Amino acid sequence: MALSYDSLNENVKKCQYAVRGELYLRASELQKEGKKIIFTNVGNPHALGQKPLTFPRQVVALCQAPFLLDDPNVGMLFPADAIARAKHYLSLTSGGLGAYSDSRGLPGVRKEVAEFIERRDGYPSDPELIFLTDGASKGVMQILNCVIRGDGDGILVPVPQYPLYSATISLLGGSLVPYYLDESENWGLDVDNLRQSVAQARSQGITVKAMVIINPGNPTGQCLSEANLREILKFCYNEKLVLLGDEVYQQNIYQDERPFISSKKVLMDMGSPFSKEVQLVSFHTVSKGYWGECGQRGGYFEMTNIPPRVVEEIYKVASIALSPNVSAQIFMGLMVSPPKPGDISYDQFARESKGILESLRRRARIMTDGFNSCKNVVCNFTEGAMYSFPQIRLPPGAIQAAKQAGKVPDVFYCLKLLEATGISTVPGSGFGQKEGVFHLRTTILPAEEEMPEIMDSFKKFNDEFMTQYDNNFGYSRM
Amino acid sequence: MALSYDSLNENVKKCQYAVRGELYLRASELQKEGKKIIFTNVGNPHALGQKPLTFPRQVVALCQAPFLLDDPNVGMLFPADAIARAKHYLSLTSGGLGAYSDSRGLPGVRKEVAEFIERRDGYPSDPELIFLTDGASKGVMQILNCVIRGDGDGILVPVPQYPLYSATISLLGGSLVPYYLDESENWGLDVDNLRQSVAQARSQGITVKAMVIINPGNPTGQCLSEANLREILKFCYNEKLVLLGDEVYQQNIYQDERPFISSKKVLMDMGSPFSKEVQLVSFHTVSKGYWGECGQRGGYFEMTNIPPRVVEEIYKVASIALSPNVSAQIFMGLMVSPPKPGDISYDQFARESKGILESLRRRARIMTDGFNSCKNVVCNFTEGAMYSFPQIRLPPGAIQAAKQAGKVPDVFYCLKLLEATGISTVPGSGFGQKEGVFHLRTTILPAEEEMPEIMDSFKKFNDEFMTQYDNNFGYSRM
Ligand SMILES: Cc1ncc(COP(=O)(O)O)c(C=O)c1O
Ligand SMILES: Cc1ncc(COP(=O)(O)O)c(C=O)c1O
Repeated sequence: MALSYDSLNENVKKCQYAVRGELYLRASELQKEGKKIIFTNVGNPHALGQKPLTFPRQVVALCQAPFLLDDPNVGMLFPADAIARAKHYLSLTSGGLGAYSDSRGLPGVRKEVAEFIERRDGYPSDPELIFLTDGASKGVMQILNCVIRGDGDGILVPVPQYPLYSATISLLGGSLVPYYLDESENWGLDVDNLRQSVAQARSQGITVKAMVIINPGNPTGQCLSEANLREILKFCYNEKLVLLGDEVYQQNIYQDERPFISSKKVLMDMGSPFSKEVQLVSFHTVSKGYWGECGQRGGYFEMTNIPPRVVEEIYKVASIALSPNVSAQIFMGLMVSPPKPGDISYDQFARESKGILESLRRRARIMTDGFNSCKNVVCNFTEGAMYSFPQIRLPPGAIQAAKQAGKVPDVFYCLKLLEATGISTVPGSGFGQKEGVFHLRTTILPAEEEMPEIMDSFKKFNDEFMTQYDNNFGYSRM
Repeated sequence: MALSYDSLNENVKKCQYAVRGELYLRASELQKEGKKIIFTNVGNPHALGQKPLTFPRQVVALCQAPFLLDDPNVGMLFPADAIARAKHYLSLTSGGLGAYSDSRGLPGVRKEVAEFIERRDGYPSDPELIFLTDGASKGVMQILNCVIRGDGDGILVPVPQYPLYSATISLLGGSLVPYYLDESENWGLDVDNLRQSVAQARSQGITVKAMVIINPGNPTGQCLSEANLREILKFCYNEKLVLLGDEVYQQNIYQDERPFISSKKVLMDMGSPFSKEVQLVSFHTVSKGYWGECGQRGGYFEMTNIPPRVVEEIYKVASIALSPNVSAQIFMGLMVSPPKPGDISYDQFARESKGILESLRRRARIMTDGFNSCKNVVCNFTEGAMYSFPQIRLPPGAIQAAKQAGKVPDVFYCLKLLEATGISTVPGSGFGQKEGVFHLRTTILPAEEEMPEIMDSFKKFNDEFMTQYDNNFGYSRM
């Protein structure tokens, strides 16, 4: 039977991935036609001009070209601590970057990750329960693949959410069980709401198996409080859910009231029986933070209270694709053990990372303020992560026009924005939203010096759009 | 519901991956205990001492550390053509190695791949139908994921086969439809045999959707002839099967009678209606050939006669994991457009790659001859790829002893071999075999100078083993 659209796996057809969906495809077309596009559809800092941190790049370059280590001139291009680190990482491999590693990743790097987690949380971490992956996405997909048996299995996912989750659940033929974040409470998570979602899913015969949290949030940018995390973990304990803690933005925090606190730490702080029983898988990546090394594809997950036989099965499945890429494993090693005060490269490293983080903090503020100055736009402050998620209150005239154009209203708005300004965003519907409420997501990543101009051009477009469609019949409801 | 072995996805539990199975795990344990292990379980050349090719590593190192390109001293460590190439590849990215690329890979690299295919086959190739992947494994998994809808869908897979296929088909809940390669015909592929396999699968209600060929073969090492490929393509045409052509070993050829010829070229040579209708997906990688860059995780697949809507769906699914790693994309670019005569680095590149290939050819010979000198061992010559797959004729006493130890007979033999010599192989049963016939697979990758010693130690173990168990009740049948 030939491969045609009709004969494709239905789960493949069903899945949606808005971050690279219609808007992205249209933006790529316009770019080919010569239009200047500002890609804010995906958190891809280097694509918008962020420079890589020097030290880790030096180390990985040396690992790629180990013959340089024998060259008497190597010191003219590389500092001594980068040379020493490259030798260290090469000693952890068996055959350098060209050899498959263990399918869980290099044992030496997993040990460094475990030590990082111990320092961060103040609790032991076992390298045998840490798997390195080609980015956090692959880790999430591996875990969900083990959990989901079919459409009778449900996964609690926040709405709005990062579409990796909805797409993967569709692809694996599972059921997404939505729980809503509360925009009016700065995208807070209400446990009563969770309980309702679970009850409703169960009444439909769904076995709820796991719960996803994204902290700091994407697209919503909120940081969960310790109290909130404790409630969530208790909920998972009571309901026997695996908690999938997507913590890829743990370095990206732009306020001081709620610093990042890991789910693992909160769980360990809670003590027995929780710390011994709640099943947790936490994800991290080199793509985010002040590293932004998206193209390297490096990530890890740590498992807590997952039975050994299950860990073995996850290992077996990981081994089918042989090994995660080795150079990104080294980036992960470097991310969890960066230069220390006193190291030759420390000052430069600290200056570069601080520069990126402070600029992100300023950009978060510029964007939020910019959106809030626009007609019919309201926007919570980006407490963390890399996104701004303004609500766009579309007038009935705009909704009407969208319908006539055969588009979802927020897609209609975002397409018009793209054509008018070159700003490539993702319509809120790609992340899930309540009926009749519209958003868009942009990253806060355009270069700081370009930010005022981008916000001006957004405002100009938006305010004209609103004037054009605002026929005084009222707004879409909040 | 908590995550326990019982509540895992059944398809996860079902899948087997022998290349990193019991033997590999035991070998890893022994290594931890201090025993010297020769890992020949997986085709991982750099792990056994193969040096990386210098030029591509120089280029990728510069891409990782682009700031070196502005350093006046860069020429002291890097030749001018490597510098020029690094600039070229960086110009194809939007943000260097740290930015996610398009989910299909960098357009500029896909163009270079298409040009390579055109030169190789003499027929046009379209970059839009080439997707870059994190190794060929991921590509195979993506395509099978689109094809397989459930256990009613069957995939024809050679036996013995590379277990990526059996494991992925299990994981996706499909049905493996075996067709047997004929050991007495140097692992040839008989189309009558294929027809029988399809008929049998259909009589069981299975829709056969695709056929896998591995050429050159893993674990069997045979090279398919043009006539044989033509028969296979005709068969796929008649039966409306997608042909998945795993051609990752296309550079690894150790005889001159049957040079590598791609399925794509044979198909195009056949002309209409075949060339317009047979659906083909071909896979390639930077892991094999004389590159052996396994740890980089770079691959591609090219689609022929796959409908545009299906291509779009494959793109959509690829986009869930955002992008393949960018540095391996550059390795792929370099593999398909290596230095040319006249380039500064040409001589070194040619010398290095020739050295590796000629040594592999000699090692293929040493191994085959070595195995054939052993008691109760017969082995076809390794015409291509990286493996030797000797048949081990286990005496009834050994089969009896294995049964008592609760082991499959070939696993029993391979474990004993491992404990006695440190040689870590994969039992033939991991690749599928006929009832009562036993093999093992080793790579031909140990360093050439160590080869005689390894073969001696193998022979010593084997001949003692055979003497111990040979109670003159006859051998297992061929
Ligand atoms: C919430 C969240 N999780 C996971 C990822 C995946 O990151 P990666 O696969 O690059 O590690 C992203 C990327 O944007 C994300 O926003
Ligand atoms: C036949 C065959 N196909 C595919 C692969 C996968 O290679 P990679 O994923 O490293 O590209 C291998 C690896 O050994 C192989 O032997």
